[in-house]
Amino acid sequence: MENFVFQNTTKIIFGRDTQKEVGRIVKRYTNKVLLHYGGGSIKKYGLYNEITGSLKKEDIKVFELGGVKTNPRLGLVKEGSKICGDNSINLILAVGGGSVIDSAKAIALSALYRGDSMWDFIKGTSKPSKTIPVGVILTIPGAGSESSNVTVITNEEGMIKKGYHSNLIRPEFAILNPELSFTLPLYQVACGSADIIAHVAERYFTKTKYVDLTDRLCEATLKTIIENAPLAIKNPKDYNPRAELMWGSTIAHNDILSTGRIGDWGSHKIAHELSSLYDVVHGASLAIIFPAWMKYVYKRDLDRFYQFAIRVFDIDPCFGSKESIALKGIEKLQEFFKSLGLPVTLKDLDISDDKFDKMADKTMLFGSIGNYTELQREDVVNIYKLAG
Amino acid sequence: MENFVFQNTTKIIFGRDTQKEVGRIVKRYTNKVLLHYGGGSIKKYGLYNEITGSLKKEDIKVFELGGVKTNPRLGLVKEGSKICGDNSINLILAVGGGSVIDSAKAIALSALYRGDSMWDFIKGTSKPSKTIPVGVILTIPGAGSESSNVTVITNEEGMIKKGYHSNLIRPEFAILNPELSFTLPLYQVACGSADIIAHVAERYFTKTKYVDLTDRLCEATLKTIIENAPLAIKNPKDYNPRAELMWGSTIAHNDILSTGRIGDWGSHKIAHELSSLYDVVHGASLAIIFPAWMKYVYKRDLDRFYQFAIRVFDIDPCFGSKESIALKGIEKLQEFFKSLGLPVTLKDLDISDDKFDKMADKTMLFGSIGNYTELQREDVVNIYKLAG
Repeated sequence: MENFVFQNTTKIIFGRDTQKEVGRIVKRYTNKVLLHYGGGSIKKYGLYNEITGSLKKEDIKVFELGGVKTNPRLGLVKEGSKICGDNSINLILAVGGGSVIDSAKAIALSALYRGDSMWDFIKGTSKPSKTIPVGVILTIPGAGSESSNVTVITNEEGMIKKGYHSNLIRPEFAILNPELSFTLPLYQVACGSADIIAHVAERYFTKTKYVDLTDRLCEATLKTIIENAPLAIKNPKDYNPRAELMWGSTIAHNDILSTGRIGDWGSHKIAHELSSLYDVVHGASLAIIFPAWMKYVYKRDLDRFYQFAIRVFDIDPCFGSKESIALKGIEKLQEFFKSLGLPVTLKDLDISDDKFDKMADKTMLFGSIGNYTELQREDVVNIYKLAG
Repeated sequence: MENFVFQNTTKIIFGRDTQKEVGRIVKRYTNKVLLHYGGGSIKKYGLYNEITGSLKKEDIKVFELGGVKTNPRLGLVKEGSKICGDNSINLILAVGGGSVIDSAKAIALSALYRGDSMWDFIKGTSKPSKTIPVGVILTIPGAGSESSNVTVITNEEGMIKKGYHSNLIRPEFAILNPELSFTLPLYQVACGSADIIAHVAERYFTKTKYVDLTDRLCEATLKTIIENAPLAIKNPKDYNPRAELMWGSTIAHNDILSTGRIGDWGSHKIAHELSSLYDVVHGASLAIIFPAWMKYVYKRDLDRFYQFAIRVFDIDPCFGSKESIALKGIEKLQEFFKSLGLPVTLKDLDISDDKFDKMADKTMLFGSIGNYTELQREDVVNIYKLAG
């Protein structure tokens, strides 16, 4: 086990009707809030009225910025930052999934910054010293951004998608009501589930030896998602599987599962290029790339892939050789993604091989990637080919 | 799944040599500290010098209070509280296991209180409003007090042992170096392991339905402890199993595993009476009482005990009837405790049945106990008999 420091301060308020408390909760921080959201769905299903009603009941002045897209853009972050600055806003309330929360975190980073934008922090030319707190009402389980310390932003100049870590942007509170996910398109539920799986798996595939507890906690989370995601898609209004997915999304990414171990995150970076070039939803890009990455690297530590197959997919150890069991585990994961209605190859999205080189170049923009297996440009091209 | 609020703010600093950072860490809070510890072991093995050296290097003034016993007493808490008050101390550094940390938390509760002592809070005649922060250097994995919001104190008047919960006493930071547990008596390692198991199991046995993720996280933690405790006892200087036990101790009791479910805690209360009357080490009392409790209540929800047997002890589902499998799981747990060198019956400690009535009376002092199964006085006597 590696030495580590772990602290996750986000207050989770989980369960039915919890969004109705938002006014009371926000009131502890401020009487002026930026309500940040995506498209029209929060208005369509009444959530917008419920939230603004609860805030206004507590005499909280509400500023608004909607329009966050999948793979949130720096342009909108700059706009939000200006609204916060112009109006001395001191809490951003993100209502949505990972994209909205990431956008809110990026605004929080920029709002009190005198330079150009938070992209300076990503480039490393400056460091944030102060942020505005972020609160969350989660509607899409998946990204785990509700209690993580990371934001992933796409810069329209060059369409570069990149993450930034800082404990300054970990949300103060996150309201998680699984009922708010009932009206999601089923494809989005599937994408979110793939994202949860990938967050755990990026931590699971590690070079660190003797990490029994976190291995088993990872396997526990994977098994829960694998069992509940199909149920959540089959019965969209059944609270129970939605609750497992929503809490699973947070657990997968609140860093408990990575304590004492170094994750890989290569697949995430390779998948990001599908999103930034083709606007593929993050979870869908992972459903394509993660199994391809697994096939490319499994020989690096056969024991770990064997353990994954045996413990997560209950493959019978008598099934065959260690390698065939390891490969069976990868196949099972790919079948699982497929069963959720997700693409599992680039062909499924009509993406040809003509931009593999460009995508690999962009993946390597900030140097070699991965930790479980360090990957160079050529490896990345090979993984795109395996995903073809 | 039940609605819940979860927040655990303790900063964990985990790994080799981390205690050497204590001066630098404490300095962020204060320049005056009460160093609180138990017997002489921290002096015997050099830890005392290491800590005081690190604190003094940062010009931190160190006051001291040693002498915390297993099942920490209110008398010493009052003494600590007076030292803090007299010297305007504003951080208590607990160096030890659960007893020392619990004692430090109780001092933290009392130090700024103008009434008699923190026992008023336990009685419910008063409520704490302000506390002194607590920091921890953990030497014994087990109690999980290093990041929990609870303290268990024994009042010498009537030898009443009772817990008190408050987020005000959750430690600010906890330094966890598994190497500091290398010199522990092996019996103490065994007791700590039983305590970890019981903390998870008290959460696992719940009436709450559809708690897949936390069920599996509990099972993951149990399996890890069951695998690693024997190794930690066999090879006391092997870092790896000690690290699994130490992080397992925190995970078992930091409340992640109880999110969305209501635990039982009846066994803890029944076991407390063995400690307060016979001064049995907490973990040993649980190794006796928990299996007895299981035998008494398993019919309440056979499916859950069956699941425990199958998933935690890998009992073959073909072993026999659901009931026989459930019973096999209980037997396996008892065998496990025995294999660690723990007592598993009251006879093993030469405790006869002559005080069962008195113990049951004291257990019920604050009303009926348990949630998975609510227990009355007669049930408690029966459980003592089963443990006989």
